[in-house]
Amino acid sequence: MEECLSKGIKAVQILTAGFREKSEEGQKVEEQLTRIAAKGIRIIGPNCFGVYSPAGGLTFLPGEDFPRESGPVAFISQSGGYSHRVTHPAMGWGIRFSKVVSYGNACDVNECDLLEYLHQDPETEIITGYIEGVKDGHRFFKLLQEVSKTKPVILWKGGLTRGGARAVHSHTGSLGGEEAVWDAVFRQSGAIRVNSIEELIDTTLAFLHLAPHRGRKVSVVGGGGGVTVAAADVCERIGLSVPLFPNELQKKLASVLPPVGASYRNPVDVANPSPPPAVLKAVLETLLTEGDVDIVIVDSLYMPMLSSSMKNGEERYASTPGELTQVPVDIKKRFSQPVIVVLPIEKTGADAMELEGTRRNTRDYYLGEGIPVYLTLERAAKALANLADYYERRDTILSSDSGN
Amino acid sequence: MEECLSKGIKAVQILTAGFREKSEEGQKVEEQLTRIAAKGIRIIGPNCFGVYSPAGGLTFLPGEDFPRESGPVAFISQSGGYSHRVTHPAMGWGIRFSKVVSYGNACDVNECDLLEYLHQDPETEIITGYIEGVKDGHRFFKLLQEVSKTKPVILWKGGLTRGGARAVHSHTGSLGGEEAVWDAVFRQSGAIRVNSIEELIDTTLAFLHLAPHRGRKVSVVGGGGGVTVAAADVCERIGLSVPLFPNELQKKLASVLPPVGASYRNPVDVANPSPPPAVLKAVLETLLTEGDVDIVIVDSLYMPMLSSSMKNGEERYASTPGELTQVPVDIKKRFSQPVIVVLPIEKTGADAMELEGTRRNTRDYYLGEGIPVYLTLERAAKALANLADYYERRDTILSSDSGN
Repeated sequence: MEECLSKGIKAVQILTAGFREKSEEGQKVEEQLTRIAAKGIRIIGPNCFGVYSPAGGLTFLPGEDFPRESGPVAFISQSGGYSHRVTHPAMGWGIRFSKVVSYGNACDVNECDLLEYLHQDPETEIITGYIEGVKDGHRFFKLLQEVSKTKPVILWKGGLTRGGARAVHSHTGSLGGEEAVWDAVFRQSGAIRVNSIEELIDTTLAFLHLAPHRGRKVSVVGGGGGVTVAAADVCERIGLSVPLFPNELQKKLASVLPPVGASYRNPVDVANPSPPPAVLKAVLETLLTEGDVDIVIVDSLYMPMLSSSMKNGEERYASTPGELTQVPVDIKKRFSQPVIVVLPIEKTGADAMELEGTRRNTRDYYLGEGIPVYLTLERAAKALANLADYYERRDTILSSDSGN
Repeated sequence: MEECLSKGIKAVQILTAGFREKSEEGQKVEEQLTRIAAKGIRIIGPNCFGVYSPAGGLTFLPGEDFPRESGPVAFISQSGGYSHRVTHPAMGWGIRFSKVVSYGNACDVNECDLLEYLHQDPETEIITGYIEGVKDGHRFFKLLQEVSKTKPVILWKGGLTRGGARAVHSHTGSLGGEEAVWDAVFRQSGAIRVNSIEELIDTTLAFLHLAPHRGRKVSVVGGGGGVTVAAADVCERIGLSVPLFPNELQKKLASVLPPVGASYRNPVDVANPSPPPAVLKAVLETLLTEGDVDIVIVDSLYMPMLSSSMKNGEERYASTPGELTQVPVDIKKRFSQPVIVVLPIEKTGADAMELEGTRRNTRDYYLGEGIPVYLTLERAAKALANLADYYERRDTILSSDSGN
């Protein structure tokens, strides 16, 4: 490191582990690194995978699969493993990254420095992260509050249980912190808290495709009564509202739906998991013109059709999306309220790979059209609730700012 | 129906909808059906898909994909849609059914009759169900309590929120009921409550492969510190315990693990998402011989390896499981404590279908060896907690019985 410094090298990544997280001796060596850094060289790490920056042509190790294409999402990760385990599945969902930084023990550049950098980084619109401990709690909290005013910060905080905190200590030598303290940090800073890889990706998708839309009033359109019963339960438990439609609207919906087997109070049951495209179109048009809802969720309507069409050898859904599949895309272009789609993996067997391929292609078609897709309604609802939480908290913070 | 009765027909399924759930007129016709049934003919439905009974050669409509092979799991569903939407993905996870009954409005045969039948059905070992409302709450509760003493009853109750209850009414004309009442029903009857398709399947898998094992003390073995931090958080939040290992055991684990990057307090971080098979074997042997844990969870260790092997053109994991993949199977044969495996979908892109095929084959290999597999640690932990809950409640109920 001294030699690097003397050669005028500006920055170093240290992948090696065995420092503060390992032993007292390691801690001493790490403190030496920090002192050298203070003389004019920046360090990412040690105990990390470093930086992936597609615009700069930098890929961390092992990074054989990381594309050169940039995107608006940044991800900072105290864990090297998660710098892969989050970004890999995220990329499958069409998310592209401005910068991913695995920063490990953070002997020099830490989570606060990275937040500050990403705050002003023009390439980054959404900041996500997995963190275990923070060096300077006060600075971190203030930064979160400041950054969240202009860019959503979606954070997964690991190590808040007893077992988790113990694991944090042997992982990055940090202190995990108290659950209650972190609850308050999230509530008061406006940062968005997530608790798993899946929730981080789902919430990012919502911000990517829906922001600045917000609102908790949803209508769920499904095909089959049980689906809509569960849909209402899921949405209301997670903090969305599924408002009862007024009589007038119910009558209009009834007029476009089959006379038996449908329901139209909200959720809307179109009485068929593969309804005629004209029926779905009429329902969505009616809802978005006359229903007082913020968002419409089309829940699990396509897979039964995909499944049958595959069985019947009709390959038309495999590469060019079929007529029913297109309905939400056409609707999205004509109305201001967002439409989102739930596309579950209904056939999970090793013999259903062709169907799974079709499902992924259909998903990619929607994502390409700016319609977020989720694997389950539970996951969709949680992402929407996180989106609504963010804007409500930001409004509160901004209005208290202007009141000062 | 009168004609069927006069011809001596014993039972009828009525798929048609438009009865009690639709209108007063429909309700009257349904009451007529009930009166006819009382004269000596049994009715499943109306407003349902009816019965799937592989041993009897019966398949409900539309049931083109349902195998003739029987299994130990029964599923009763007030929703026709869920009789498909639960059983399809379940079959992909190797679950086979004794009987599936979509019973709809239950004008004659209802959820209580079905529970009584399945209780004594020698083909059925695990009873699962999706229900919206019950006809006779007292009888239902007593039955749940009785059946749960010998067979686990895994139930998803839909319609407990305001929106859900409204949807239930227009779906099967039932009353949804109060959340607090149902909480008590589950707690006191010993039935297992689940809240989604995924949780129903995951919990069924735990009963299929692990019962009568129980216990909340788990060790999680992962490769990469962040994974084990999250693992501890997840398990402890869901009600499992991740006990700190005694010094003696930590030392033994340390002696088989790499000197840097690993941790062994529990969770165990083997410092590599694709560790050498001998390392994983030594860790699992040490844990199961000397660790005071009920269950070991091997978390996300295989996919990175599968991914690399696919990239390098090594196809050996596609059909014959590789050496690392086999370790948990060998361990399972030698120890009494169960081993379970988390095998996530790490690459979610449409370009990763070959890897997904390999993942499903690997999953099927484990399932065939009696090792349950889960998509995420969250889902594994919830299933294990449900399993432990069942046995704890059953013990309480049985001991209060014998005290009377």
